[in-house]
Amino acid sequence: MTVGDLGEFGVIGRIAGRLPQGAAVLLGPGDDAAILSAPDGRVVVSTDLLIEGRHFRRNWSSGYDIGRKAAAQNLSDIAAMGAEPTAIFVGLGLPADVTTDWLDALTDGFRDECALVGASVAGGDISRSDTVVLGVTALGDLGGRQPVTRSGARPGHVVAVAGRLGHAAAGLALLQAGRADGGDLVDAHRRPRPLYACGPGAARLGATAMLDVSDGLLQDLGHIAEASGTGIELDPATLPVAPALAEAARDLGADPLEWVLTGGDDHAFAAAFPGDVRLPSPWLVVGQVIEGKGVHVTGRSGTAGGWDHFR
Amino acid sequence: MTVGDLGEFGVIGRIAGRLPQGAAVLLGPGDDAAILSAPDGRVVVSTDLLIEGRHFRRNWSSGYDIGRKAAAQNLSDIAAMGAEPTAIFVGLGLPADVTTDWLDALTDGFRDECALVGASVAGGDISRSDTVVLGVTALGDLGGRQPVTRSGARPGHVVAVAGRLGHAAAGLALLQAGRADGGDLVDAHRRPRPLYACGPGAARLGATAMLDVSDGLLQDLGHIAEASGTGIELDPATLPVAPALAEAARDLGADPLEWVLTGGDDHAFAAAFPGDVRLPSPWLVVGQVIEGKGVHVTGRSGTAGGWDHFR
Repeated sequence: MTVGDLGEFGVIGRIAGRLPQGAAVLLGPGDDAAILSAPDGRVVVSTDLLIEGRHFRRNWSSGYDIGRKAAAQNLSDIAAMGAEPTAIFVGLGLPADVTTDWLDALTDGFRDECALVGASVAGGDISRSDTVVLGVTALGDLGGRQPVTRSGARPGHVVAVAGRLGHAAAGLALLQAGRADGGDLVDAHRRPRPLYACGPGAARLGATAMLDVSDGLLQDLGHIAEASGTGIELDPATLPVAPALAEAARDLGADPLEWVLTGGDDHAFAAAFPGDVRLPSPWLVVGQVIEGKGVHVTGRSGTAGGWDHFR
Repeated sequence: MTVGDLGEFGVIGRIAGRLPQGAAVLLGPGDDAAILSAPDGRVVVSTDLLIEGRHFRRNWSSGYDIGRKAAAQNLSDIAAMGAEPTAIFVGLGLPADVTTDWLDALTDGFRDECALVGASVAGGDISRSDTVVLGVTALGDLGGRQPVTRSGARPGHVVAVAGRLGHAAAGLALLQAGRADGGDLVDAHRRPRPLYACGPGAARLGATAMLDVSDGLLQDLGHIAEASGTGIELDPATLPVAPALAEAARDLGADPLEWVLTGGDDHAFAAAFPGDVRLPSPWLVVGQVIEGKGVHVTGRSGTAGGWDHFR
């Protein structure tokens, strides 16, 4: 059966029936708008647009993986402000020949990724489309904490990361080389695993600036450097290069450190902390905030770029 | 110049530079997420996905009109809950050959429609896309009022509308007939004009159920009837048929009442109120809530449908 057979309201009912609603959802799907609890009196909001062929491919990722990934990249934006995600909303463009099995898997992917952080899929919109399009908006609550923006890094602060770097990029390179057997790395491309608790955790540890790495460590730390009016120096010896990454790099004739520095989509958290901070695992100090501009890698000249959607 | 020439961050900077941020925006575009004030402690959220060729055509509507319309249909969802819109977020998929002039016009359309209700475009996302895609999410604040859902209509209540009905449908029919000179009706298709203040106003007047008419009066009132467990009877003699609508119907050999009953996209508000309510202009009583099921039009048999995105 396809979504075309079900019709618009059949699709909506089918999706809504698979989605439990948490306590923060005061009014869920089915009305003109949903209503969420916002106990902090402020609400954190992030939105992303994901388009088939650019952000995912249905022959490379299952519906379930696409739902997990689309949710993850938005939920991690909320966590990167130091907030707890409460809900996501999904604008869903679907070709009429998408099967209900695929739609169910997508829905379950959204549901399961949200469940990791206690958030709900609290609403959405359905439209017919030539390709699959996902407009995802996530909301979160600061729980009385101050938000961690990109602008608070100061010379003398340390730069630390929590989560995987370069894994999704290596997995994508393996897929592009026809190596769908790429194991954990291909899985990392299909489904990021942000360490969500590290976001609010960093806020409690006194992080002065933070973001999630979506376009590549160098490019994203560049945003912190620019917003903070500082430079950042990274020590490549401290950057984590997993054995699987080194092995894939040997196979493909690539530089694993290039993946670590410029690979996006793992949604690790990168943050600055006061120099005297004691960071618990999994935080790993990889550099420091310095006077000046830009992001520099000790022993490398120039700064590599990341992903630009129009270039 | 095109958005491809500007690049992703150039596009983001260009858009953000045209958008003033209101007092409810505690942190605007440029970080992982925006932060909005939510003084009520609850936040109202609605999302819509608009896809070129299905929801708008660039040869029928200007960028400015498309921005106005995309904002309007989301802001009216917030107002239809009895809330005041505070902000919208726009996920924007753009072909690389879209001109910066067109992008500026789109941005200004979003900005100007939001300005009507004191809301801000507080964030978004940019992606390259083969066609223009808009994922719009609107947020609002209830100001201590109870939300007006779809489920509170009871037999004996009156049904009333505020705003235009059938104008956008007539305008679309004129465009489809090659009559781009269709004046106000074509303008109504290009740019709805929801009477936003009527949403929170209805909540203050004691509305028991409300929505904005986006898929057609019959279909949308059907949602109220179903959610409330009642029927609705409409008196066609009380439905407003504007002279321009009657004239266009004569020209095209159409039935103007059909447009009024089934035409979407004008985003009028339709609401139920207790039978003893005294409704100020522009509210117009057009029917009543009855025992039973479905929406009936006095003197007509059957119930016509509305718009289904997959049928």
